[in-house]
Amino acid sequence: MGIITLAHGSGGKSTHELIGKIFYRYFNNEVLLQQGDSSIVNNLAGKIAVTTDSYIVSPMFFPGGDIGKLSVCGTVNDLAVSGAKPLYITAGFIIEEGLEINTLEKVVISMSETAKSCGVKIIAGDTKVVEKGKGDKLYINTTGLGIFEKGYEISDKGIEAGDKVIVSGTLGDHGMTILSQREEINFETEIQSDCCSLQWLIKDILEVSSNIKFIRDITRGGLATTLNEAVVDTKHSIIIEEKSILVREDVKFLCEILGLDPLYIANEGKAMVIVSKEDAAKVLFTMRKNPQGKDSQVIGEIVKDDKGMVFVKTHINGTRVVGMAEGELIPRIC
Amino acid sequence: MGIITLAHGSGGKSTHELIGKIFYRYFNNEVLLQQGDSSIVNNLAGKIAVTTDSYIVSPMFFPGGDIGKLSVCGTVNDLAVSGAKPLYITAGFIIEEGLEINTLEKVVISMSETAKSCGVKIIAGDTKVVEKGKGDKLYINTTGLGIFEKGYEISDKGIEAGDKVIVSGTLGDHGMTILSQREEINFETEIQSDCCSLQWLIKDILEVSSNIKFIRDITRGGLATTLNEAVVDTKHSIIIEEKSILVREDVKFLCEILGLDPLYIANEGKAMVIVSKEDAAKVLFTMRKNPQGKDSQVIGEIVKDDKGMVFVKTHINGTRVVGMAEGELIPRIC
Repeated sequence: MGIITLAHGSGGKSTHELIGKIFYRYFNNEVLLQQGDSSIVNNLAGKIAVTTDSYIVSPMFFPGGDIGKLSVCGTVNDLAVSGAKPLYITAGFIIEEGLEINTLEKVVISMSETAKSCGVKIIAGDTKVVEKGKGDKLYINTTGLGIFEKGYEISDKGIEAGDKVIVSGTLGDHGMTILSQREEINFETEIQSDCCSLQWLIKDILEVSSNIKFIRDITRGGLATTLNEAVVDTKHSIIIEEKSILVREDVKFLCEILGLDPLYIANEGKAMVIVSKEDAAKVLFTMRKNPQGKDSQVIGEIVKDDKGMVFVKTHINGTRVVGMAEGELIPRIC
Repeated sequence: MGIITLAHGSGGKSTHELIGKIFYRYFNNEVLLQQGDSSIVNNLAGKIAVTTDSYIVSPMFFPGGDIGKLSVCGTVNDLAVSGAKPLYITAGFIIEEGLEINTLEKVVISMSETAKSCGVKIIAGDTKVVEKGKGDKLYINTTGLGIFEKGYEISDKGIEAGDKVIVSGTLGDHGMTILSQREEINFETEIQSDCCSLQWLIKDILEVSSNIKFIRDITRGGLATTLNEAVVDTKHSIIIEEKSILVREDVKFLCEILGLDPLYIANEGKAMVIVSKEDAAKVLFTMRKNPQGKDSQVIGEIVKDDKGMVFVKTHINGTRVVGMAEGELIPRIC
C-alpha cells in the first residue's frame, strides 16, 4: 500500500483517499460517516465527562498491545475512573512522512477492535503529516466523551480516616515491557503490558458500593504519584504496606538491575480505589471476580494527618515517605 | 523560566508544576480546575457537535497569528460551520524537549485570549514531551464540543440548481503568509494570515436565513477542494466566475512567481456559503456588515449536472475544470 507522504496531509485528494481506505473502513459508524467538519451525536443529556490524551509510546508495537490499543484504552479508562460510561472517541493522527501505510492500517485495526470491545464509537478524526525527522512514525491524540448513569456514582463524601486503598493487580508491567523493548536495553523477558480497558471492572465496583471515594487508573508516575494525587491538599495521609504490593518476579528483577522502584513505574491496566472501611471487603471480593482485578489487594488505608503525604511500611517494619515521581524514569511510556 | 525537559512529560512533580504554572494559570475555569482524569460539564442536552484537529503549523508564530490562536480558531470554526455554538475545547500538547517554557507560555496566553474572544472554555488538557529530534517544538490537538440552538440551523433540504455560492473574502492570505515566512523563501511582504474565528459571522448568516445549504471554512486544500467537497457524490456541479474571486495583489504576485494557484491555497478565516437564490442578496448584505465578511462576494452558482464537478469561467470566457488539491503544495500550513 506504499508509504505516507506529505500529500496525505494536504487536505486534498490523497487525504480523502487515505480517509476512505483506512479510517472510514475500520472506524465504520454512522456518526463518523456524516463526513462533516463536526460529527453530530444525538441526545446526550445531563452531565458529560470529557478527557483528552496524546499517545507517543515508543516502540509503537509491544507485547500486550500497541499505540492504537493504548490510545483507546487510556482514554476510556480516564472516563471510567470518573464514574462515566464511555461513549465516543475522537482520533487525531500526527504521522511522520515515510510511515508504511500497512503499519498505519494495523494500528487503526487495533483501535477499531479495542473500541468495539469497549462499546465506544470513534466519531471524528484528523490526519496531519510532518516531514521526516519532525516526528516519530505516529502520534495519536484521543479525546473521549462519556455520560453518567444513575446507580454508578463516585461518592462525593470525600476520603476519611479508615478508608481502604485497593490496587487491582501487579505493578510495573507496562513500563517494564516498554523499557525491555528499547534498543539500549533489549532484555529478553516474558513480561507483557497490562494495557486494557478498566471500564467493566469499574462498573462492577460502582454497582456494588455507593461508598467509592476515589478511583484512578495508575499510569505515568506510577502508584506513588496516584497515591499522592489522592491526598495532596487534603487533611489526610495514606499509609501503605510494602508487603501487600504485588510485583511480578521478572519486573522486580529488571527494576533491581536498573535501579528503578516499581512504585514509580507506569501501568496501563491497573486501578487504585479508595473505599469506605465498611465496603472494602465486598469491593475487593467483586474486583477479584473480574479477570482485570483477579489479583486485587488492599494495600493500605487513609489516616487523619494534615500533611497530605504518603508513607510506606517496609518489609522490615520501617516507614518511608513516598513522594510524587520526580524527573523522568522512562520517557515515552504512553 | 527554563526549557521543557522529558521530566515535564513524566506525569510526576514537574508535570504538575508545569500544569499549575502555565495551563491552570491561563486556562483558568471551574471545569478545568476540577483536576480530574475527566472534566465534567453540566447540562449539555440534545444534539452535540464534536470535532478534532491537530495543529503542526511551521513556523509557530507568523504575522496575524500563532499556533495557539490557530488551534482555537480552527476548531471553533469547524463547530460553527456545522451550525453549532462552540462551548468547550480540550487541548493536547506534544512538546519537543528543549522548547523554551516562555515560548510555551506565549502560545498558551494566545490560546486563552482567543478562547475568551470566542466564548469557549478550555476544559481538559494533556502534556506529552518527546525527545529532541522527534517533534518540532510544539504540536497541539484541540477537540471541540458545541450545541445546537433553535433558530440557527443549516437547512437539510440539500443543494439545488440556482443556489448561490458566496465566499467571505480574499483567498490565500494564510497560506502565502506561512510560505513567505519559511527560510527557503523569506519573501518580504505585508501579507498577514487571516486566522480568525468565524463563529459570529456564521451566527449572523444563520440568523438571517433558514435556507443556508452548506457552510465550510476554506482551509487545507483551498477553495477548490471545499467546492469539490460540496458537490462530490451529488447530482449537481458548481460554476464559479474567476473574476469574482478576490485575491490580494501581493498574494497574487507571490503565487505567480512560485507557480501556485490561489484556489488551492489554505485560508484560516474564510467561509464558503451555499444559499438559496432567493436569500442570497440578504445573506451577502449581512455578511458584508460583519468585519470578518466585509469583502464577501457571490462567486458562482449550483447547476444541475450529475458529474458533481467544479468549473471555472475564466477572465477570457473559457471554462476549466477545477479538481481537488493533489499532492502537497505547502506542507504544515496548519
